[in-house]
Amino acid sequence: MKPKAAKQIELETGALSRKEIVAILDALPLDITFVGSRDTVRYFNRLGKRIFPRTQAVIGRKVQNCHPPKSLPKVEEILSGFRSGKRDSAEFWINMKNRLVHIRYFAVRDSKGRYLGCLEVTQDITEIKKLEGEKRLL
Amino acid sequence: MKPKAAKQIELETGALSRKEIVAILDALPLDITFVGSRDTVRYFNRLGKRIFPRTQAVIGRKVQNCHPPKSLPKVEEILSGFRSGKRDSAEFWINMKNRLVHIRYFAVRDSKGRYLGCLEVTQDITEIKKLEGEKRLL
Repeated sequence: MKPKAAKQIELETGALSRKEIVAILDALPLDITFVGSRDTVRYFNRLGKRIFPRTQAVIGRKVQNCHPPKSLPKVEEILSGFRSGKRDSAEFWINMKNRLVHIRYFAVRDSKGRYLGCLEVTQDITEIKKLEGEKRLL
Repeated sequence: MKPKAAKQIELETGALSRKEIVAILDALPLDITFVGSRDTVRYFNRLGKRIFPRTQAVIGRKVQNCHPPKSLPKVEEILSGFRSGKRDSAEFWINMKNRLVHIRYFAVRDSKGRYLGCLEVTQDITEIKKLEGEKRLL
């Protein structure tokens, strides 16, 4: 018997099932966390495989409660810049256990430019920095 | 009047609206294309902003028709390795107009390890390669 086709979610440049979306986000070669327009953590990928581990307990938490108090002014400055439209990204990079970790924040907006939230993207760039020359498919 | 809350799609480590999923995928600092388990293109992000441009016309096309014939054996080898479980990724890097472009393919599997498709990830790593030292949030 042919299995019933999974319900497709329309994404404007294609359509995917819920299961495919989950698996694609987890297959990305970077860790993401999404904080919604009300500053609460709404989603993260790569459970159990992250550079900075998270558990489901973080979902719903105010982003202001996810940072040490001394970094809060900078966090608030970035978020308010995103919210007002003054800025679209912020980036940092740190050494951690001999790895170079690139941490970026991006404003997430809908097609009309309305602020939907902030995407944190964390990527171990240690190996990427070593790439030289070319390695082509052919 | 308070706007009606958008329907949430459960993603195991959080829940997002359809609109948020679209905007998050488009905010990623890399271009992705997803080819499903039947080798057809199902989704791509960053319409109009990609390193290798695509249009909606590619949706539904067989991946075998997206490559020049001479690279097809290599494409088929990667896909069949993903399908059989023998391999999980493949990577290439090329110079293009003085940019270094990193092209990776990842097997996408569900939680039971079943093959859902192949994710192509293309990233301009020119600026990342220049990062030195640290730039911390504090």
